[in-house]
Amino acid sequence: MSAAVIEFFWDPASPYTYLAATQIESLAARHGATVVWRPFVLGKVFEATGNRAPATVAAKAKHLFQDVQRWATLYAVPFRFPTIFPINGISAMRAACAADDAGHGSAFAQAIMKAYWADGADIAKPDAIAAVAAALGLDGEALLARTAEAEIKDRLRTNTEEAVKRGAFGAPTMFVDGQMFWGNDRLVLLENHLKARSH
Amino acid sequence: MSAAVIEFFWDPASPYTYLAATQIESLAARHGATVVWRPFVLGKVFEATGNRAPATVAAKAKHLFQDVQRWATLYAVPFRFPTIFPINGISAMRAACAADDAGHGSAFAQAIMKAYWADGADIAKPDAIAAVAAALGLDGEALLARTAEAEIKDRLRTNTEEAVKRGAFGAPTMFVDGQMFWGNDRLVLLENHLKARSH
Repeated sequence: MSAAVIEFFWDPASPYTYLAATQIESLAARHGATVVWRPFVLGKVFEATGNRAPATVAAKAKHLFQDVQRWATLYAVPFRFPTIFPINGISAMRAACAADDAGHGSAFAQAIMKAYWADGADIAKPDAIAAVAAALGLDGEALLARTAEAEIKDRLRTNTEEAVKRGAFGAPTMFVDGQMFWGNDRLVLLENHLKARSH
Repeated sequence: MSAAVIEFFWDPASPYTYLAATQIESLAARHGATVVWRPFVLGKVFEATGNRAPATVAAKAKHLFQDVQRWATLYAVPFRFPTIFPINGISAMRAACAADDAGHGSAFAQAIMKAYWADGADIAKPDAIAAVAAALGLDGEALLARTAEAEIKDRLRTNTEEAVKRGAFGAPTMFVDGQMFWGNDRLVLLENHLKARSH
């Protein structure tokens, strides 16, 4: 069977997406799979599906704060709940589309989420986005300029619409072999699928 | 440190509770912990917290059917989505309280959930409850008679109210060392806690 391709739909506003993002490349590598990083707008997904963020239920919100920290501990990755939450990740995701065109989609996606979920950066701001780009050796000003292009805006919109059409209702949403997996907590099922397909 | 006690709050109406129930005793045994099985009424928990069942979002419901089957495959446990869904598990849970008094709380809880989620039994019916009891060598008629007792009814109500007070908003909900863990998909975090406490 040919190598698996994991489409990873992400929005930096989602803590579980950051957590999954810290794991997905190594998970894929264990099975010879590749990851295609596709930003999408979670707020629009909620609007389209009638789903809502977990934090809208008070008891769930309280649990979420503990829960994300526990996952970060399990994964041994840096995590600090941002003081600015929720955040508007539209500009960051448009910049990610431009970074992808420059061949750095994976690195930029991971770095922008780490900037927000571990380093407390206000990634709604152009300066923070440029700093993430610069740390990867990319031209931050050029990336930011591209976020105003219709083609980039359309791509983010198309990603979102396509994900919803394929069944997404939350983040992260992953597709492999036409199957959908939702959530950081389903990486174990995604990996089980990759194991089974290679047999 | 003393052996850990896992309080496992369950409602047979929840597929993820069945899935977790197939794992929790062996997980506990791996760490010298014990499990206290406490039935609670999930519908009342949703009412009290403003949470709602995942199946109330159409895209989520579609995903849920695949997802529960994937977990069953991962765990290698029998699973067949019931034709009668959702189900009223009140009588079954009252019977579980009575079975607990007879020293068979764990076995009855596991058996009643398997009857519903693997064998298609209509566990809202007294006959199905009596059959589960009989298979465990218990007196089904005696258990059913006790479901009418005020003490048993109160215990189920008290379990539910206590769980909500302690932060529960869904099922299964597990408590250990004063910490709450929610969901079959958090067994990995519960186990990580048990590992950490023994060090």
